[in-house]
Amino acid sequence: MDKDVTNIKKTQNQFDPSLISEIMNSVDTNNRISVIKIIEELPPADIADIIQLLRSSERKSFLDIIKDHFDPEILSDLEEGAREEVINLLGHNFVAEILPKLETDDAVHVIEDLKEDDKNIILNKIPKRDREELQLSLNYPDDSAGRLMSLDFVATPPDWDVGRTIDFLRDEKDLPNEFYEIYIVGPTFKPIAALSLSNILRSERTNKLENLKSDHLVAIPAEMDKELVAHQFERFDLVSAPVIDEGGRLIGVITADDIVDVIQEEAGEDIKFLGGVVGDENITDSALRTSRGRFTWLLINLFTAIIASTVIALFDGTIEEMVALAILMPIVASMGGNAGTQTLTIAVRSISTRELVPLNYRRIINKEILVSFYNGVFFAIIVGILGAIWFENNPLGIVLAIAMTLNMLVAGLSGILIPLGLYKIGVDPALASSVFLTTVTDVVGFFSFLGLATWLLV
Amino acid sequence: MDKDVTNIKKTQNQFDPSLISEIMNSVDTNNRISVIKIIEELPPADIADIIQLLRSSERKSFLDIIKDHFDPEILSDLEEGAREEVINLLGHNFVAEILPKLETDDAVHVIEDLKEDDKNIILNKIPKRDREELQLSLNYPDDSAGRLMSLDFVATPPDWDVGRTIDFLRDEKDLPNEFYEIYIVGPTFKPIAALSLSNILRSERTNKLENLKSDHLVAIPAEMDKELVAHQFERFDLVSAPVIDEGGRLIGVITADDIVDVIQEEAGEDIKFLGGVVGDENITDSALRTSRGRFTWLLINLFTAIIASTVIALFDGTIEEMVALAILMPIVASMGGNAGTQTLTIAVRSISTRELVPLNYRRIINKEILVSFYNGVFFAIIVGILGAIWFENNPLGIVLAIAMTLNMLVAGLSGILIPLGLYKIGVDPALASSVFLTTVTDVVGFFSFLGLATWLLV
Repeated sequence: MDKDVTNIKKTQNQFDPSLISEIMNSVDTNNRISVIKIIEELPPADIADIIQLLRSSERKSFLDIIKDHFDPEILSDLEEGAREEVINLLGHNFVAEILPKLETDDAVHVIEDLKEDDKNIILNKIPKRDREELQLSLNYPDDSAGRLMSLDFVATPPDWDVGRTIDFLRDEKDLPNEFYEIYIVGPTFKPIAALSLSNILRSERTNKLENLKSDHLVAIPAEMDKELVAHQFERFDLVSAPVIDEGGRLIGVITADDIVDVIQEEAGEDIKFLGGVVGDENITDSALRTSRGRFTWLLINLFTAIIASTVIALFDGTIEEMVALAILMPIVASMGGNAGTQTLTIAVRSISTRELVPLNYRRIINKEILVSFYNGVFFAIIVGILGAIWFENNPLGIVLAIAMTLNMLVAGLSGILIPLGLYKIGVDPALASSVFLTTVTDVVGFFSFLGLATWLLV
Repeated sequence: MDKDVTNIKKTQNQFDPSLISEIMNSVDTNNRISVIKIIEELPPADIADIIQLLRSSERKSFLDIIKDHFDPEILSDLEEGAREEVINLLGHNFVAEILPKLETDDAVHVIEDLKEDDKNIILNKIPKRDREELQLSLNYPDDSAGRLMSLDFVATPPDWDVGRTIDFLRDEKDLPNEFYEIYIVGPTFKPIAALSLSNILRSERTNKLENLKSDHLVAIPAEMDKELVAHQFERFDLVSAPVIDEGGRLIGVITADDIVDVIQEEAGEDIKFLGGVVGDENITDSALRTSRGRFTWLLINLFTAIIASTVIALFDGTIEEMVALAILMPIVASMGGNAGTQTLTIAVRSISTRELVPLNYRRIINKEILVSFYNGVFFAIIVGILGAIWFENNPLGIVLAIAMTLNMLVAGLSGILIPLGLYKIGVDPALASSVFLTTVTDVVGFFSFLGLATWLLV
């Protein structure tokens, strides 16, 4: 028992960082026994982490050493970029051999992101029956429930009793490794009810399944987008759910551990998009791949910056007469940008979590106008006074205050309308909102401030 | 069966928006029967959504009508702001009465965010036994595993056989509603193994539990931060895990449906922090509460904008001589800001997901320098040529290009060093990184461009 308690401690946190240096040393000295001894103690997720932490050159030697002990789950735990590299290092034959050992959902996860060529080569090397299973999932669209589901589930007719069900589970060899519910299906294999195992375990053997109190049945259509699937799991606190095809027939099951990954991934995507990282960049990608991925976004931003500059250029004469304008104008633009970003962030996030829905659009838009107005007026007063004192010029302070109020109002309104508009025309609001927003706040900020100054001050 | 298939369709997506108008009308005309008929068909999560979509005035009438049919789970499904309001509308006595009907983890979730006074009043009205259970969780720190765990679990001694275990589960009345594993515990109640129900169901009645092939046991210490708990669930694809106290004794269980909420919440926090929304703002908050919440962040940004302006002010003479500088300077600052934000976003996200760890700090920092250099040089050339042509001034183009390269290098370096530094001193990098970053990119952008121009051009 003491051994087990030690084991508990060991799996607690991130693996011991010293392991990595130990592995690196052992890899460098080609000390296979030591490497294998370390990795045999670790779960696949940790080995995946180790691979990602190694340099490209070390990855090859490391994989050579562990190949005979390679747990297929490592593949599904790797990030996309590293996975591609590892699959190339392991070779198509080897990968085709180990893929069928994974649950179908994990195997699909590994294979779906591969280049079309690699995907076909590997699929063709997989035995027919396994291949057909994978194809069934792969035929559903990217990011759909069909890609997430496992094809291994337990279904029974409604007239079985608990005893017969338990006997069936004991005798049948071809069952999922792990399952949490069984599904009662009708004659056409449509799910009628979901019964949790604890429910079955706690019922008398003579009870008919159809008479057990069943839980809310939430069947997921295979074409449903995975974000919406995750939303269903959240709404109903599900641990697993049956997946049905277009005919309503049971074809698979999705479990909460996959949903955890979906949510992590979707949230990561929103964060990256909002920060202008548009590709599927991962921190372990190479410098060249990273630069290329970020380039497009920077180019788009360059265009918006140039637009802002041309607005300033309209007023070059005014600036020459009153250089204070050049000093103060970034404040107007930047405060607008920040206020707008706040609104935008909340709007994008609330669209994702489905808290901002057509039903409350109008109310939320009205609220954002009010919020911008409150903060706009407040900061206009602060900044106006500051500008007037700094340059000993009261009219300048007043112009600054008016421009500030205007820009913060426009910023708040754009912060909510831009993401809603993009969402309505089917563009991911996390992706494109912020570039439109900064263009608006820069242009309005510079134009209102310099325009008012030209009109009223010089 | 047809009825059931209809039922499947109904629980698929977001509830029907027309329901809301129907409910609003029924509330306005005080048509109780119609309201109750609608809500009886809906899961608690949907009723919580409805409450959040109603105006404050309607919420009161709606709650009056549904009070007798109020499912306690609605409380745990509400957002914090709305929950506080609903608890006040329902009254302390009512809440104290329904709270014990929730699983302990949900009850803790409802009560932990309340104001200290409200919390104590409600706790004191709850029967002693239930109160002590809640206190056990509440004694653990905010955001710890202890707050997430449910106290209802099934534990057995190692020498029981499968048959005895099943009989126990059938006979014992006081068991959790739903469970996925049972835990084998030693004499001091330390968990020795976790056995999934499917494992037990598939084993012969005469098998001893200790002889069943057990899964990897990942015991979660009750003090562990919930982000780290979520990380364990991700690493090991867990559906549930036992929670242990300081003495290693089993005290509770955490299930994947709670982890789904944790991940959603933590990701939302990162997104909001990065967007400058620092409080726990929710889209359904009032305008006044929202403005106040966003105010501090805007004030901090005002200071950084003023710092940038004072840098510009250092060079007012140069700008007066060459107004092109005022036109071009926002480009340098904005490109630096955007490039830095890209790096920062990836860094913050990777710290959260534990992909950026001390082991790869140096490699990632080197990579970011390289990335900034590549893109810095590239954009310097574009912008330099552009500036030279626009103002027919080659030296100006060169100064612009040098300033651009410099600022993008500094931006990339700051984008990785600022979040790492903040993380090291224990500050949430999502929270404060971006304000430091923009200060750096504005100051360096303006200073390098205007400084070089002063030195070389005028």
